[in-house]
Amino acid sequence: LSKQIIGLVPGTGKQSKGIALRLGKAGFNVLIGSRKEEKAKKIAAELNDMIGKDCYQGFSNEQIVKKSDIVFLVVPPEYLENTLMTLNPFFKKRAIIVDVNVPLKFEEGICYYIEDENYKSASELIQAKVPEFVSVVGAFKTISAAKLNNLSRPLDVDVFLTSDNEEAINTLIEILSKIEGLRVLNAGPLIFSRTTEQMTALVININKLNKLKHASFKVMTARGKKN
Amino acid sequence: LSKQIIGLVPGTGKQSKGIALRLGKAGFNVLIGSRKEEKAKKIAAELNDMIGKDCYQGFSNEQIVKKSDIVFLVVPPEYLENTLMTLNPFFKKRAIIVDVNVPLKFEEGICYYIEDENYKSASELIQAKVPEFVSVVGAFKTISAAKLNNLSRPLDVDVFLTSDNEEAINTLIEILSKIEGLRVLNAGPLIFSRTTEQMTALVININKLNKLKHASFKVMTARGKKN
Repeated sequence: LSKQIIGLVPGTGKQSKGIALRLGKAGFNVLIGSRKEEKAKKIAAELNDMIGKDCYQGFSNEQIVKKSDIVFLVVPPEYLENTLMTLNPFFKKRAIIVDVNVPLKFEEGICYYIEDENYKSASELIQAKVPEFVSVVGAFKTISAAKLNNLSRPLDVDVFLTSDNEEAINTLIEILSKIEGLRVLNAGPLIFSRTTEQMTALVININKLNKLKHASFKVMTARGKKN
Repeated sequence: LSKQIIGLVPGTGKQSKGIALRLGKAGFNVLIGSRKEEKAKKIAAELNDMIGKDCYQGFSNEQIVKKSDIVFLVVPPEYLENTLMTLNPFFKKRAIIVDVNVPLKFEEGICYYIEDENYKSASELIQAKVPEFVSVVGAFKTISAAKLNNLSRPLDVDVFLTSDNEEAINTLIEILSKIEGLRVLNAGPLIFSRTTEQMTALVININKLNKLKHASFKVMTARGKKN
């Protein structure tokens, strides 16, 4: 397993916990962040209990960024820019940010993707706001928190990785491929986060309009099996 | 089976033929269009031979539009506006256009979606350029021509339908659901053609970057089976 330190900022939401649980189950140690260190430690203890081993530790978000080689950024879109301003001084050289954000809104029962006026996607916004030596990888955008948290079911989905740093994608492929039932796919340059973010709105609508539950995308090859 | 007349404009390209073959195999009669009636008749005869029954007839594109309740529009993006100007006078009242166009470009080995400056998607452009009594449904955007043409393999993919006309979506669901191995999903308002068009570029890159072949998207539910 990778020797790189993995942290979640914050690690306290539903999607964060889902990612933390899947990583822990795959054998990784994961640092859980929160603005308040006390809350982070509490959640880490809960996650250790849930998974029955001691793989989570809680720290302040600032500490997580200082310690981690790979930072999962699970900040709600509206706090993204402020959070980055606060955390930017603490990123390690060559840190990787895994951006799982999807800005969404609902209008008359339909889910729409909120396109950032300047950057078009959350991933591109984050890449523009962090130090140059930090690489953003878009990931997990199309996978629901409910599916990540339901440990009794194999994931059986694909995760699409987008980044302008090929090496960062390869690092993530190595790590995430350890998660059971997750196929990790290189989905090209960071600009394609626009697509994966929009796909989240699309799949939410597909769920509702076709009475499916927690649907996610998977890429099928000509032979109709996973490759 | 539906009594609505189905036509393809034109029906002579690789993607058209794939759609025609799948519809013919599902039991539908299909009108094959071309700018030259002679060419349309030749292709229709070829398709009849391929499928071993007499379900294709060739006509000029103009005749197809006059006759058809459902017109599959398979015109290359660069000819779209001119073709519509020519055909607009001939659409039936309440005709449905099935738009399968995806404007793509390749740069340094990566496939990008060409966003229309004004309309953002081919489907929205078409809806803006046709008479008000014609409804556009985006479909088949994410499914490769190669997969459609390979009749020896079940399709085993999902088709995402986008339209601002719910009734048009329901008509298409009824028709396309007859195609073996194709799950037909309502993917919401026409604006989501932006997403399905972008997904085509995404899946082309996923194919190349991950050494997959003819990959297409499928929506998996929490139970990991088709619903």
